[in-house]
Amino acid sequence: MSGNGTRNGLYGAQPAARTRGPVHVIGSGLLGASVGLGLRERGVDVTLEDLSPTTVALAADYGAGRVRAADDAEPTIVVVATPPDVTADAVERALATYPNAVVTDVASVKLAPLEELQRRGVDLTNYVGSHPMAGRERGGAIMARADLFTARPWVICRDAETPAEALAHVEDVALDLGGVLIEMTPEEHDRSVGLVSHLPQVVSSLLAARLVPATEQAIGLAGAGLRDTTRIAASDPELWIQILGANREPVTELLDALAGDIADFADALRDPERVGTKRRIADLLSAGNAGVARIPGKHGSSERFTTITVLIDDTPGQLARLLTELGELGINMEDLRLEHSPGAQIGFAEIAVLPEVAERAVADLVERGWRTL
Amino acid sequence: MSGNGTRNGLYGAQPAARTRGPVHVIGSGLLGASVGLGLRERGVDVTLEDLSPTTVALAADYGAGRVRAADDAEPTIVVVATPPDVTADAVERALATYPNAVVTDVASVKLAPLEELQRRGVDLTNYVGSHPMAGRERGGAIMARADLFTARPWVICRDAETPAEALAHVEDVALDLGGVLIEMTPEEHDRSVGLVSHLPQVVSSLLAARLVPATEQAIGLAGAGLRDTTRIAASDPELWIQILGANREPVTELLDALAGDIADFADALRDPERVGTKRRIADLLSAGNAGVARIPGKHGSSERFTTITVLIDDTPGQLARLLTELGELGINMEDLRLEHSPGAQIGFAEIAVLPEVAERAVADLVERGWRTL
Repeated sequence: MSGNGTRNGLYGAQPAARTRGPVHVIGSGLLGASVGLGLRERGVDVTLEDLSPTTVALAADYGAGRVRAADDAEPTIVVVATPPDVTADAVERALATYPNAVVTDVASVKLAPLEELQRRGVDLTNYVGSHPMAGRERGGAIMARADLFTARPWVICRDAETPAEALAHVEDVALDLGGVLIEMTPEEHDRSVGLVSHLPQVVSSLLAARLVPATEQAIGLAGAGLRDTTRIAASDPELWIQILGANREPVTELLDALAGDIADFADALRDPERVGTKRRIADLLSAGNAGVARIPGKHGSSERFTTITVLIDDTPGQLARLLTELGELGINMEDLRLEHSPGAQIGFAEIAVLPEVAERAVADLVERGWRTL
Repeated sequence: MSGNGTRNGLYGAQPAARTRGPVHVIGSGLLGASVGLGLRERGVDVTLEDLSPTTVALAADYGAGRVRAADDAEPTIVVVATPPDVTADAVERALATYPNAVVTDVASVKLAPLEELQRRGVDLTNYVGSHPMAGRERGGAIMARADLFTARPWVICRDAETPAEALAHVEDVALDLGGVLIEMTPEEHDRSVGLVSHLPQVVSSLLAARLVPATEQAIGLAGAGLRDTTRIAASDPELWIQILGANREPVTELLDALAGDIADFADALRDPERVGTKRRIADLLSAGNAGVARIPGKHGSSERFTTITVLIDDTPGQLARLLTELGELGINMEDLRLEHSPGAQIGFAEIAVLPEVAERAVADLVERGWRTL
């Protein structure tokens, strides 16, 4: 939430876009519409296309660009943001339709579409695969946001033959959208997302599937732990069949390994008298502690922002007063979480701000009499 | 966050406590201190005890009760809130020390301590095991809250020989703390929590443990899905060794079943040409959808409260104005979440309120010109 009137105010005056447009976006769902919104905000000319006229019209209304017309000039860059199973088709078509444009895609698996294009003998000089690591629980243009990619990794898969200029075009788009460039081979990319995205998805789905035959009474005892571990089990099966099928080898290897870990854990737990059993269980649980500690930005919004914790008495209007004063101080609040311990009559407001303003914000708040943690 | 000065204002005038105290709480961590805070708020006399003088002093300072003195009268009810591995000891000692009191415990496993007490030949007439399904990521009295148990299931394990009066005493405590009573046998309880709590814990830990040997590059691609599925892997290994060890049979059975599911999924994925493979994968992912849909209160705070979504322009002071007006309208906000789509220059404030005031709150806000969803 910006304390200023515009996002320009929030992020400072926007420098000129690096992207040398026009940019054509094929597929107007969450990712395509977010690419359009973000580039439009930087002043880039964006045209849109989608198999569904309703979808593309919605994205255009939302401000993601304008529907492409027959007499539009050839784009400099084409971003393919279709479902993964038609990525190779869409890339091939785009390369043929716009022979002078650089074509990239945002599909979440990189090796399979590349091999498919190579198998078809498509000239890939103008193609640079990429994958922005961003998404939301719900898809569709309506969930799109200009800052979806801000501070998120954006993987670029170049190879030795990729012309420097084609690479630069795709990197410009990623940078204009606030992405953090990461170069990987398609193989490295697919193994990595297998571990950090596809494995958790399957595990979450299978864990949630175990709830189907459970008694109502058992389900009634569910708490935050179960909700968190199974949240992504609500994802679209059709999309995940495509993703998992396209990343079969790394995913099956990881699934086999995890199934082995779970069976080993059960064996250790079953046999409490064996020497070293308790130690083995402790080691596995501690390894879980160590693993989760490696994940950057564990605390949601604190990933991009610095969190300031302000103590507020649980009295009328205190929070409103805090927000008013933040506005007066010119401190832009990016996010807000409340935490309260009612019995103790004390609450905390966790305010996310840009890292560079955090120190001044704390000093200003303390000067006005607020207690920060 | 209360818009009134006190929680009494928030929940309306508190009726007299059902609990016929005094209540003695053994163990002053998160659960014990929360029991104390909640009962104190209802005017019940609460005494505290803990192996650690620092811990019990902290809980007393926090308002959870007073440290028990030698000349205090015998309590009517004793609540054992120690770590699970010393629950049986503490219950046995409490029954011996306070022969006229009803003793309950809040341990997260119910059969093992009961069998241990039976094995020792302890007279269990005055014992009623219970388990409030509540907790927080971080433990300790400092995280305690009077409303920790509000609207959460509180399992009571009675047996045929439990005297009605002993049962009533424990139920009164649970009801005064806002718990929702659920009667189960110890066996039913342990199987249920095995599924909804212990299985997700082990899976989350083992999934997170897989991140230990991962490359920095791979970890750098982590997103919200990995963070959510591994959040509880940060839990205390010592506590979980105790819990899992005490619920060995149901947990190993569930782990074996899930390991089998994962191996089957990998087999299906490995063999895309076999007839029915895609269907099998789709069915498993869809079962995950169905399973997660069964979990009550998927959306955090909306579990206890009704959420009102208010559209706010992304302009200065709008949120502060909204909160000020909520205060003027006498609407108590229990929680607040912000959601903003910067590109679209529109944000949403999700305000949690008590269900009984939601309708009036929406009407009042609309009358003042706010747009609600």
